[in-house]
Amino acid sequence: MANKTNPGNFFEDFSLGQVLVHATPRTVSEGDISLYTALYGSRFALQSADTVAQSLGYPGAPLDDLLAFHMVFGKTVGDISLNAIANLGYADGRFHAPVYPGDTLRTTSEIIGLKENSKGTSGVVYVRSTGINQHGEIVIDYVRWVMVRKRDPQSPAPDTVIPQLPDCVALENLIVPSELDVSQYDITDAGGVHLWQDYTLGERIDHVDGFTIEEAEHMLATRLYQNTAKVHFNQHIQKDSPMTRRLVYGGHIMSLARSLSFNGLANAQWVAAINAGRHVAPSFAGDTIYAWSEILDVLELPGRPDIGALRLRTIATKDQPCGEFPDKNDAGDYHASVVLDLDYTVLIPRRM
Amino acid sequence: MANKTNPGNFFEDFSLGQVLVHATPRTVSEGDISLYTALYGSRFALQSADTVAQSLGYPGAPLDDLLAFHMVFGKTVGDISLNAIANLGYADGRFHAPVYPGDTLRTTSEIIGLKENSKGTSGVVYVRSTGINQHGEIVIDYVRWVMVRKRDPQSPAPDTVIPQLPDCVALENLIVPSELDVSQYDITDAGGVHLWQDYTLGERIDHVDGFTIEEAEHMLATRLYQNTAKVHFNQHIQKDSPMTRRLVYGGHIMSLARSLSFNGLANAQWVAAINAGRHVAPSFAGDTIYAWSEILDVLELPGRPDIGALRLRTIATKDQPCGEFPDKNDAGDYHASVVLDLDYTVLIPRRM
Amino acid sequence: MANKTNPGNFFEDFSLGQVLVHATPRTVSEGDISLYTALYGSRFALQSADTVAQSLGYPGAPLDDLLAFHMVFGKTVGDISLNAIANLGYADGRFHAPVYPGDTLRTTSEIIGLKENSKGTSGVVYVRSTGINQHGEIVIDYVRWVMVRKRDPQSPAPDTVIPQLPDCVALENLIVPSELDVSQYDITDAGGVHLWQDYTLGERIDHVDGFTIEEAEHMLATRLYQNTAKVHFNQHIQKDSPMTRRLVYGGHIMSLARSLSFNGLANAQWVAAINAGRHVAPSFAGDTIYAWSEILDVLELPGRPDIGALRLRTIATKDQPCGEFPDKNDAGDYHASVVLDLDYTVLIPRRM
Repeated sequence: MANKTNPGNFFEDFSLGQVLVHATPRTVSEGDISLYTALYGSRFALQSADTVAQSLGYPGAPLDDLLAFHMVFGKTVGDISLNAIANLGYADGRFHAPVYPGDTLRTTSEIIGLKENSKGTSGVVYVRSTGINQHGEIVIDYVRWVMVRKRDPQSPAPDTVIPQLPDCVALENLIVPSELDVSQYDITDAGGVHLWQDYTLGERIDHVDGFTIEEAEHMLATRLYQNTAKVHFNQHIQKDSPMTRRLVYGGHIMSLARSLSFNGLANAQWVAAINAGRHVAPSFAGDTIYAWSEILDVLELPGRPDIGALRLRTIATKDQPCGEFPDKNDAGDYHASVVLDLDYTVLIPRRM
Repeated sequence: MANKTNPGNFFEDFSLGQVLVHATPRTVSEGDISLYTALYGSRFALQSADTVAQSLGYPGAPLDDLLAFHMVFGKTVGDISLNAIANLGYADGRFHAPVYPGDTLRTTSEIIGLKENSKGTSGVVYVRSTGINQHGEIVIDYVRWVMVRKRDPQSPAPDTVIPQLPDCVALENLIVPSELDVSQYDITDAGGVHLWQDYTLGERIDHVDGFTIEEAEHMLATRLYQNTAKVHFNQHIQKDSPMTRRLVYGGHIMSLARSLSFNGLANAQWVAAINAGRHVAPSFAGDTIYAWSEILDVLELPGRPDIGALRLRTIATKDQPCGEFPDKNDAGDYHASVVLDLDYTVLIPRRM
Repeated sequence: MANKTNPGNFFEDFSLGQVLVHATPRTVSEGDISLYTALYGSRFALQSADTVAQSLGYPGAPLDDLLAFHMVFGKTVGDISLNAIANLGYADGRFHAPVYPGDTLRTTSEIIGLKENSKGTSGVVYVRSTGINQHGEIVIDYVRWVMVRKRDPQSPAPDTVIPQLPDCVALENLIVPSELDVSQYDITDAGGVHLWQDYTLGERIDHVDGFTIEEAEHMLATRLYQNTAKVHFNQHIQKDSPMTRRLVYGGHIMSLARSLSFNGLANAQWVAAINAGRHVAPSFAGDTIYAWSEILDVLELPGRPDIGALRLRTIATKDQPCGEFPDKNDAGDYHASVVLDLDYTVLIPRRM
C-alpha cells in the first residue's frame, strides 16, 4: 500500500539529460478561447476572428500565443515546480506552429542544467520544455529555470552545469508562420494605424489602461491551464505564509500585460519569441496591473518585405500608472511597483 | 515617433454623417454561449438547446439576442464612448438575423446627431450602430446617444441636429425571423404555460428572484464583449472617483434582468426590438439585482396567427425586491432602487 | 390574468408515481467543458484530451461525469426543490452513456416515495431523476430525497411510502461503457502509476491539496448548470438568513472533491455510480475545501480482466487538511470540518 499522492520532484530527483513526459494531454477548444477573452479582454484581430485569420492565410483563428504557452507550461508544474521556491527566468522561447481549437497539446521537458545552491538546501533546475500537438509538431519550446527544494539537504550535489542560453532568440531562429500572408491586412479591423516602420529603437509606450485582478479570475485562469501550483488556490494555507495571500500565477500577469499592450501595439499580431522574462515581484488579488513597453529592436526579416519584427520589453506594474515608465534605477533595483519584466519579439506588418 | 495609444474620440472629432468602421471583428462561439449561461443563468429554451431550435425551424441554437447585442455594442466603445460622461439612451434597436456560433460580427456606426451642451465642455453624440455578420447581413442595428467630453472647450460647436427617433419600433418594422415555425412548440420544454393571449395590457409581473453581482463576474462579461471602457476594470483609478468603485457595464444589468424575466415570461423566446432604454443609476459589485415587467402593449403580427408580440417595460432594481413594483413617482422621479428602465419587444407563441 | 411566476411545487403537490418532465433542454458544448476545467482544474485524461479518449475507444473526449450529473440535476430544481428545506441524500445513481459536446440533455423525474414529517409542515419527497440525450438514451439516473415545505399545513398527509433503495449500486448493475478499451492505456498521460491492484480495502488517501471557494466561482458554476435555487445567488436575502451568506451548491463541493482526488486516484477515469451522498454541512465562499478518500471495496468486473472498480468514500472538509482523515466519531457525529460524505464507484484500469 504505497503512498498514492504525488509529492513532486525535489532537486536531487533531477539529473542532467533527464527527459520528463508530462501528464494530461489537453484538447484546446473554442471554450478556452472564450475564457481567455473573458479573462484578459484580448483584442488582437488575428486571434479574434476566423475571417481575419483566413484573410491572412490561416485556416481559422489560432489561439492567442500566450494561451498556448500557458497550456504547455501548466503541464510541467506537477513534475518540475511543485516544490519550487521561485520561478527564476525564461529564455529561448519560440512559437513554432499556430495552435487551433481541436488541437491536443502535450509537453515534455529535458533537464539541461543543474546548480545546487551554496546552502545545500535547494538548487536551480534548468529545463527546456516542448509543447507538441497531435501531429507530433512542436508548437512551442522554451527554457525556464526554477529554484527547487531538496528533499534531503544531505544528498550530494550534482555537477554544476549551467546551460548556454541566448540573451535573445536570434533573428535567424525566429519562426515566421509559413501561412502568413499580409497582402489583405486591414488596419481598420486590427484597430491600430501604426505598422513596423512607425516604431523606433528606444521608443517607450505607455499602455495607459489598468486591470484590477480578482481572486476568482486568476484561479479560473490557472485551473484552465491545469496548473496545479498550490500557492494560487489555497487561502487556508497561504494565510499563514509570509505573503498571507494567494499568489497570482505569473503567466496571468504576462497575459494581462499583453492584452493591455494592444493600446499602442494593436498590429503586433504574433508573439514569435520569449527572449527573457522575470517575475520581479508577486501579484495578488486587488492589484491593478498597468504596463508599458520599450522597443528594444526593430528587425527586418530576411525575405519578408511585408512583415517585420519588434523586440519589446514590456514592464507590468501594480497600482502604478506607467506614464513615467517605472523601471530599474541606476543601481539596478526595480521600482517598487514593477511585477514583470518581459523581453519578447512580435511580428508586425510593414507598410509596403 | 507619434503617440501610439488611442485617446478615443472627443466631441469635436465627430461630424454629422461620419461613418466609423470599428475594430476587431469577433467570431462568436459555443464558448461565448457557455460563459453567457454561466454569467446570467439564462434558460430560454430556443437559445439553450439545438433540438429545440431545430424544432422551431432554426439550424441550431442561436445566441441569446442580448449576447449578440453586447458583442456588437462592445466594438463601438473604443471609437464612440471612451471619453463619454454618460450613456444616455437607446432607441430603434432591431434584431434582424439570428447569430450562430461560428458567425463573425463587425460593427459600423454612423453619426446621426450632435448637440453641444450649454457649458461647451461636452456634447451629445447620436449614433446608429450596425452589426454585420460574415455574409454582410445586418444582425442588429440600434441608436444610442451618449454625452462625450470635448478635448478643447474652445473648439466651435457643430450645428445642432437631433435625429427623429421613434418612441418604439413600429409594428411594421418589427422583424420576425423567417425561419421561425412554432407548430412544434413545446411549453414543457420552454418551462412556462403562459402564451401571448395570457398577457394583458398594463399587467405587471414581479420576477421574484435576485442575483448578487461580483466584481469578477461583471469584468469577465465586459471583457468577453471586448468592451474597453475603463470604469469597469480599474479599481486603482475608480477608488478616487466619486463612485469609489468600478461601475458595472449597463448591458450586464440588461442581461441579468432578461434572465430574471424568465420567471413570468418563459415563452418570450425572442427579443425583436429595443425600443428605449435608460441606465437610471449605476450598479456596483455587491448589488443584488431584481426585476419586474409591465406589459406596455399586446400586439398581433400581420400574417402570423401563430406568434404575437409583447411590448415590455422591464425595471431592474438593486437591493429591492419588486413585489411592489418600484417605479417613478408622480413627479417623474425614479424610486431610489431603480437602475434600469428598458422598453423592448419580444415575440411569443400564440395559443391557436 | 393569472400569476405568471413559478412558485415551485410544495409537498402536497407531489403524488406517488407522478412523472415530471423538466424544462429547458440543454445542448452541452466545449464551452461547458472549458468552464468546468476552469472551475475545478480537473485533470482526468479521458475527459481532457480527444486523443486519449480515442485511444480508449471513444469518438472524442466525453464530459466529466459530474458535469453531466450537474446538468441533469439542475433541471430538476425548479420543479422539485424550489421550496426545499434540505437536500437529504442520493442513492442508486448510475452513469449509463457518455455525454459528448453537442449532445442535448433533458431530465424527467418520477416521485417514488413520500413521507410527511411529524410536525405536518413539510415532508420528504423521494424522486428518481433520469437524464436523457437527444437519441432518447438514458445518460444518468439517480434517486435523491429532499425535504419540501407544505404550502398549507392543514392539507392531508399522503400515505407514507419509503422506497427500497440499495446501499450501493450492485456490481451486476454497474455499467461499464461498451466502447471502453484500455489496451492502449498510458499511465504517463494519465499522470499516475497506481492501478486497480494497487488499492486495498480500507486504504485511506489524503488528497493533500485545497481549493478556496469564491462567490463568483460557485455562482458561475451553478448558473452554468441552470440550477435556480435562490440560496446560491441572492445575498440581499441571504444576509437575513441564519446562514447570513449565500450557500454553495452541494454539487460544487462534489466536483471540487473529485478534482482534488486526482492526487492519489489519477487513473480512476470513470465515475460509474453514485451509491450514496450527504451534504453534511453547508459551504460558503471563503471556505477552503480539502478531501480524502477511503477504499470501501475493490471489485472485479465480470468479463473485464482489463478494468476493475473501486468503491470509494470521499470526505470533503472545509479549512481542515485531511492528513488525519477527519471523519465521524464513535457516536456517529461528523468532525466539525466535514461538508460532504460521498460514496461512489469508479472504474480504473487493471495491470494485466
